Amino acid sequence: MHINKFVTPEIIFGKNAIKQTGDACLRLGARNVLIVSDRGVANAGWLERIIDICQDSCLKFAAFIDVSANPKDVEVVNGCRAFIDNECDAIIGIGGGSALDAAKAIAILVTNGGKISDYEGVDRIEKPLPPMIMIMTTAGSGSEVSQFSIIVDSNRKKKMTIISKTLVPDIAIIDPYTLVTKSSALTAATGMDVLTHAIESYVSIAATPLTDVQAKNALSLVSTYLRPSVASKTNEEAKEAMAMASLQAGLAFSNAILGAAHAISHAVGGRFPLPHGEINAILLPYVMDFNFISAPKRFTEIAELMGVDTRGMTQREAGNAAINFVKELSIDIGIPKQLKEVGMTEEIIDSLSQTALEDACMITNPRDMDLEQVKNLLKKVL
Amino acid sequence: MHINKFVTPEIIFGKNAIKQTGDACLRLGARNVLIVSDRGVANAGWLERIIDICQDSCLKFAAFIDVSANPKDVEVVNGCRAFIDNECDAIIGIGGGSALDAAKAIAILVTNGGKISDYEGVDRIEKPLPPMIMIMTTAGSGSEVSQFSIIVDSNRKKKMTIISKTLVPDIAIIDPYTLVTKSSALTAATGMDVLTHAIESYVSIAATPLTDVQAKNALSLVSTYLRPSVASKTNEEAKEAMAMASLQAGLAFSNAILGAAHAISHAVGGRFPLPHGEINAILLPYVMDFNFISAPKRFTEIAELMGVDTRGMTQREAGNAAINFVKELSIDIGIPKQLKEVGMTEEIIDSLSQTALEDACMITNPRDMDLEQVKNLLKKVL
Repeated sequence: MHINKFVTPEIIFGKNAIKQTGDACLRLGARNVLIVSDRGVANAGWLERIIDICQDSCLKFAAFIDVSANPKDVEVVNGCRAFIDNECDAIIGIGGGSALDAAKAIAILVTNGGKISDYEGVDRIEKPLPPMIMIMTTAGSGSEVSQFSIIVDSNRKKKMTIISKTLVPDIAIIDPYTLVTKSSALTAATGMDVLTHAIESYVSIAATPLTDVQAKNALSLVSTYLRPSVASKTNEEAKEAMAMASLQAGLAFSNAILGAAHAISHAVGGRFPLPHGEINAILLPYVMDFNFISAPKRFTEIAELMGVDTRGMTQREAGNAAINFVKELSIDIGIPKQLKEVGMTEEIIDSLSQTALEDACMITNPRDMDLEQVKNLLKKVL
Repeated sequence: MHINKFVTPEIIFGKNAIKQTGDACLRLGARNVLIVSDRGVANAGWLERIIDICQDSCLKFAAFIDVSANPKDVEVVNGCRAFIDNECDAIIGIGGGSALDAAKAIAILVTNGGKISDYEGVDRIEKPLPPMIMIMTTAGSGSEVSQFSIIVDSNRKKKMTIISKTLVPDIAIIDPYTLVTKSSALTAATGMDVLTHAIESYVSIAATPLTDVQAKNALSLVSTYLRPSVASKTNEEAKEAMAMASLQAGLAFSNAILGAAHAISHAVGGRFPLPHGEINAILLPYVMDFNFISAPKRFTEIAELMGVDTRGMTQREAGNAAINFVKELSIDIGIPKQLKEVGMTEEIIDSLSQTALEDACMITNPRDMDLEQVKNLLKKVL
């Protein structure tokens, strides 16, 4: 047995948990916070809500909302400047994975300096970060609890995966009520991201009993509640279940890391500004099929957690049932089936494949993958 | 739904994890550590091992090993003096629940002053504590990850339950190899403590999906591995499983809190210096029987996690099967059945019952319990 490490933020979960943001900031010694968010979150009214909460707690604040979906290095530089110009001492991130990943990247530059690309890879951050409070408003990325930040390198047109224990926020706030403002398309895409986190972390070579229990419960919740959550903005039971699934999948993948679906997805997402969860959803069944031989028993368990009755099935049949479950779920909630539907072309496969192989998430994929195998997989999903 | 909070330390788990102690101290900025332990741990060679590790990392250190089983307020005062006299800046606790609870209580006094009884109850600690690294050498108390410290008040002859988020250590180190020096009697008692943590946290009124997944896996592991772990000091698979069970049960109860078995056990343990796990083991079946009506479905799940085939059983039958499982396990590993076997007398029941009712663990018991009910339960286990 190797040494397992497990790191989580303090977690505050529940309806109206967002009200505890002011107290959380004060406990961390914050006096003047930079609120990092995006225009979608601001338009949905959540930025205003957080500003009210900061004012109620007598906190000074500045807001930086110029974060795009798939946040870019240049945005991080601007956010860092906002932090310094306003003499902030802590960061609140509020939004989905984009806002939260940008908030973390801003925190890196604030105390460590340099360019954000200096920190690509695993454990490159040396100096402690300012206090970070992350408020998740999509049930998706798990960024509120994870040691990940994914930022687009504008020059190289690729997503950089930055992994470091110091990126785990101090306090994560998950308020299922914030999910009611999400569109059904965003609910579908982010929900498939949760499913991908749960499955990739469960078969990761760095999985442990501490991450397994979280991944399994997340998988079970997504399998039951993603469809009803896409169907209705106001289904509270489904929103709460998906918020918990996102959180538990986040705890799992933050500590067990991910695999080939995310490695390839980051490569694709660096070139095509598509929803990360949609790319994952398209890739996932093919990566599951490729990875099956690395852990047939785990794939059988995955099928069972999805609700498949695997009695009498061979492990291969159970694995196929799990793969079919993912495909059917994607169809039901309107996810495209192929990457060409979202604009990808064959010419780009070679360079994308090389980029995918170099992604930090590839290290923990349970089956060794070479360049030809990545190319073949991408040809299948084109 | 109410707001759930979940707090854990950074966790380092695995064979030879203890070697990471020096690095853990340095990361927390420690330069001069107080090592808190007890004579049993010192005699087993672990104190010397930690001293070697500190020296290898160029850490200054002082050792305080005057901690008894069921640690007392006076010992905490002496430990606090050792910290101050030696100008320490961080605390390493190494041992079972006694050493670790004492280390936490010393940390409280070092920065907060006053008497340790000032902090009895929930959330009474105001000032931050010095960095704490806790190394667990028994698979039992879960203190290495919990927000609990239990200290005996010598005057009132009672165990004080101190609960505060600030008592969660910074870093928890769990090295299953340290378990090989435990006697079979200690393995049995501490293992039953793990079982009690798992069951009480699973039916606690503060249980959440985040604690449930940990409690369930812990319960399953204890049910499978406690007997073989008691049987052999060198069964590595059993030691590793029990270390993980202890850790997961600790994560569960630290955040879901406990119930009547612990409340009553603390009252009994304050008067009779018996192994905490043994008292829990004696009380547990009776508390389960009392609590059954609060959560029949959860008790059925408990039976299933123990390996009972509950198909065709009523919920009451399944609950009884779970209770019988606990009784049989206790018999198999040599736990006494009644408290009179360990020296308790009837005269003391009235005052013990009142003390138990006031314990912080009673708040989360799933069934309301009044004084008469505690008395009746204690009469049954006498």
